[in-house]
Amino acid sequence: MPTIVVEVMPKAELLDPAGKAVTGALHRLGHSSIAEVRIGKRFELRVDGEVDAELLKQVEEVAADMLANGVIEDVIDVRVEPASAHGAGAAGETH
Amino acid sequence: MPTIVVEVMPKAELLDPAGKAVTGALHRLGHSSIAEVRIGKRFELRVDGEVDAELLKQVEEVAADMLANGVIEDVIDVRVEPASAHGAGAAGETH
Repeated sequence: MPTIVVEVMPKAELLDPAGKAVTGALHRLGHSSIAEVRIGKRFELRVDGEVDAELLKQVEEVAADMLANGVIEDVIDVRVEPASAHGAGAAGETH
Repeated sequence: MPTIVVEVMPKAELLDPAGKAVTGALHRLGHSSIAEVRIGKRFELRVDGEVDAELLKQVEEVAADMLANGVIEDVIDVRVEPASAHGAGAAGETH
Protein backbone atom coordinates (compact mmCIF):
# COMPACT_ATOMS: atom_id res chain seq x y z
CA MET A 1 0.00 0.00 0.00
CA PRO A 2 1.70 3.23 -1.09
CA THR A 3 2.39 6.03 1.34
CA ILE A 4 2.58 9.72 0.55
CA VAL A 5 5.04 11.49 2.81
CA VAL A 6 4.51 15.20 3.48
CA GLU A 7 7.25 17.14 5.25
CA VAL A 8 6.57 20.47 6.91
CA MET A 9 9.14 22.76 8.53
CA PRO A 10 8.88 26.09 10.33
CA LYS A 11 9.71 28.95 8.00
CA ALA A 12 13.43 29.75 7.94
CA GLU A 13 12.91 33.33 9.12
CA LEU A 14 11.00 32.27 12.24
CA LEU A 15 12.40 31.32 15.61
CA ASP A 16 11.82 27.70 16.58
CA PRO A 17 11.89 27.71 20.41
CA ALA A 18 11.67 23.92 20.76
CA GLY A 19 14.52 23.52 18.29
CA LYS A 20 16.53 26.12 20.17
CA ALA A 21 16.00 24.19 23.40
CA VAL A 22 17.26 21.01 21.77
CA THR A 23 20.28 22.87 20.38
CA GLY A 24 21.10 24.13 23.88
CA ALA A 25 20.75 20.66 25.37
CA LEU A 26 23.06 19.21 22.71
CA HIS A 27 25.69 21.87 23.42
CA ARG A 28 25.53 21.18 27.16
CA LEU A 29 26.12 17.50 26.37
CA GLY A 30 29.20 18.40 24.34
CA HIS A 31 27.77 18.10 20.83
CA SER A 32 29.11 21.49 19.84
CA SER A 33 29.32 20.77 16.12
CA ILE A 34 25.51 20.88 15.86
CA ALA A 35 25.00 24.55 15.09
CA GLU A 36 21.22 24.57 14.98
CA VAL A 37 18.25 22.23 15.32
CA ARG A 38 14.87 22.94 13.79
CA ILE A 39 11.80 20.80 14.38
CA GLY A 40 9.09 20.18 11.84
CA LYS A 41 6.51 17.54 11.07
CA ARG A 42 6.36 14.43 8.95
CA PHE A 43 2.96 13.19 7.80
CA GLU A 44 2.48 9.72 6.37
CA LEU A 45 -0.70 9.32 4.31
CA ARG A 46 -1.44 5.69 3.57
CA VAL A 47 -3.32 5.41 0.29
CA ASP A 48 -5.89 2.81 -0.73
CA GLY A 49 -5.03 1.87 -4.29
CA GLU A 50 -2.73 3.61 -6.70
CA VAL A 51 -1.28 7.10 -6.42
CA ASP A 52 -1.94 8.93 -9.67
CA ALA A 53 -1.11 12.49 -10.66
CA GLU A 54 -4.62 13.65 -9.71
CA LEU A 55 -4.38 12.27 -6.18
CA LEU A 56 -0.90 13.66 -5.72
CA LYS A 57 -2.17 17.07 -6.78
CA GLN A 58 -5.02 16.80 -4.28
CA VAL A 59 -2.58 15.86 -1.53
CA GLU A 60 -0.34 18.81 -2.40
CA GLU A 61 -3.35 21.10 -1.97
CA VAL A 62 -4.34 19.40 1.29
CA ALA A 63 -0.76 19.69 2.54
CA ALA A 64 -0.68 23.42 1.88
CA ASP A 65 -4.20 24.03 3.23
CA MET A 66 -4.55 21.66 6.16
CA LEU A 67 -1.29 20.00 7.13
CA ALA A 68 0.82 23.13 7.24
CA ASN A 69 0.04 26.52 8.72
CA GLY A 70 1.11 28.74 5.84
CA VAL A 71 1.75 31.68 8.15
CA ILE A 72 4.57 29.95 10.00
CA GLU A 73 5.34 26.75 8.08
CA ASP A 74 6.44 25.60 4.64
CA VAL A 75 5.60 22.32 2.95
CA ILE A 76 9.08 21.28 1.87
CA ASP A 77 8.34 17.88 0.34
CA VAL A 78 5.46 15.75 -0.93
CA ARG A 79 6.62 12.39 -2.24
CA VAL A 80 5.38 8.87 -2.78
CA GLU A 81 7.02 5.93 -1.05
CA PRO A 82 6.07 2.50 -2.40
CA ALA A 83 5.54 1.07 1.07
CA SER A 84 5.66 2.56 4.51
CA ALA A 85 9.26 2.79 5.67
CA HIS A 86 8.53 1.58 9.17
CA GLY A 87 5.27 -0.24 9.14
CA ALA A 88 2.73 2.45 10.01
CA GLY A 89 -0.56 0.79 9.38
CA ALA A 90 1.14 -2.58 9.28
CA ALA A 91 -0.95 -5.69 8.87
CA GLY A 92 -2.74 -6.58 12.04
CA GLU A 93 -3.31 -3.03 13.17
CA THR A 94 -7.04 -2.82 13.66
CA HIS A 95 -7.77 0.36 15.58
CA MET B 1 26.58 23.56 5.48
CA PRO B 2 25.41 19.95 5.73
CA THR B 3 22.20 19.05 7.47
CA ILE B 4 21.42 15.79 9.23
CA VAL B 5 17.75 14.92 8.97
CA VAL B 6 16.22 12.75 11.69
CA GLU B 7 12.74 11.37 11.17
CA VAL B 8 10.64 10.10 14.07
CA MET B 9 7.24 8.44 13.85
CA PRO B 10 4.81 7.10 16.44
CA LYS B 11 5.16 3.35 16.82
CA ALA B 12 2.94 1.44 14.41
CA GLU B 13 1.07 -0.33 17.19
CA LEU B 14 0.04 2.92 18.90
CA LEU B 15 -2.96 5.07 18.19
CA ASP B 16 -2.14 8.50 16.82
CA PRO B 17 -5.11 10.67 17.82
CA ALA B 18 -3.95 13.75 15.89
CA GLY B 19 -3.43 11.62 12.79
CA LYS B 20 -6.87 10.07 13.24
CA ALA B 21 -8.40 13.55 13.44
CA VAL B 22 -6.71 14.53 10.17
CA THR B 23 -7.89 11.30 8.54
CA GLY B 24 -11.46 12.08 9.60
CA ALA B 25 -11.22 15.64 8.27
CA LEU B 26 -9.90 14.38 4.93
CA HIS B 27 -12.77 11.90 4.62
CA ARG B 28 -15.32 14.62 5.37
CA LEU B 29 -13.75 16.67 2.59
CA GLY B 30 -14.13 13.77 0.17
CA HIS B 31 -10.56 12.47 0.14
CA SER B 32 -11.69 8.93 0.79
CA SER B 33 -8.68 7.25 -0.80
CA ILE B 34 -6.50 8.35 2.12
CA ALA B 35 -6.91 5.38 4.42
CA GLU B 36 -4.81 6.60 7.32
CA VAL B 37 -2.68 9.56 8.37
CA ARG B 38 0.05 9.35 10.96
CA ILE B 39 1.98 12.34 12.26
CA GLY B 40 5.59 12.28 13.30
CA LYS B 41 8.49 14.68 13.56
CA ARG B 42 11.28 15.81 11.30
CA PHE B 43 14.42 17.26 12.91
CA GLU B 44 16.99 19.16 10.89
CA LEU B 45 20.40 19.38 12.56
CA ARG B 46 22.63 21.90 10.85
CA VAL B 47 26.26 20.88 11.23
CA ASP B 48 29.32 23.11 11.44
CA GLY B 49 31.94 21.46 9.26
CA GLU B 50 31.97 17.97 7.84
CA VAL B 51 29.77 15.07 8.81
CA ASP B 52 31.99 12.06 9.47
CA ALA B 53 31.07 8.57 10.62
CA GLU B 54 31.80 9.48 14.24
CA LEU B 55 29.43 12.46 14.23
CA LEU B 56 26.74 10.48 12.47
CA LYS B 57 27.03 7.77 15.12
CA GLN B 58 26.72 10.42 17.85
CA VAL B 59 23.63 11.84 16.17
CA GLU B 60 22.09 8.38 15.90
CA GLU B 61 22.55 7.99 19.66
CA VAL B 62 21.16 11.46 20.34
CA ALA B 63 18.19 10.71 18.08
CA ALA B 64 17.35 7.55 19.99
CA ASP B 65 17.97 9.10 23.43
CA MET B 66 16.73 12.67 23.13
CA LEU B 67 14.83 13.32 19.91
CA ALA B 68 12.52 10.32 20.12
CA ASN B 69 10.62 8.93 23.07
CA GLY B 70 11.49 5.26 22.74
CA VAL B 71 8.34 4.20 24.56
CA ILE B 72 6.01 5.56 21.91
CA GLU B 73 8.19 6.56 18.95
CA ASP B 74 10.67 5.04 16.50
CA VAL B 75 13.57 6.79 14.79
CA ILE B 76 12.91 5.73 11.22
CA ASP B 77 15.67 7.62 9.42
CA VAL B 78 18.92 9.48 10.09
CA ARG B 79 20.48 10.80 6.89
CA VAL B 80 22.79 13.53 5.68
CA GLU B 81 21.61 16.13 3.19
CA PRO B 82 24.34 18.22 1.57
CA ALA B 83 22.46 21.47 2.09
CA SER B 84 19.24 22.32 3.83
CA ALA B 85 16.32 21.55 1.56
CA HIS B 86 14.46 24.74 2.35
CA GLY B 87 16.87 27.20 3.79
CA ALA B 88 16.63 26.57 7.54
CA GLY B 89 19.43 28.62 8.96
CA ALA B 90 19.77 30.46 5.69
CA ALA B 91 22.28 33.26 5.41
CA GLY B 92 21.11 36.36 7.17
CA GLU B 93 19.35 34.55 9.96
CA THR B 94 20.95 35.91 13.08
CA HIS B 95 18.79 34.91 16.02
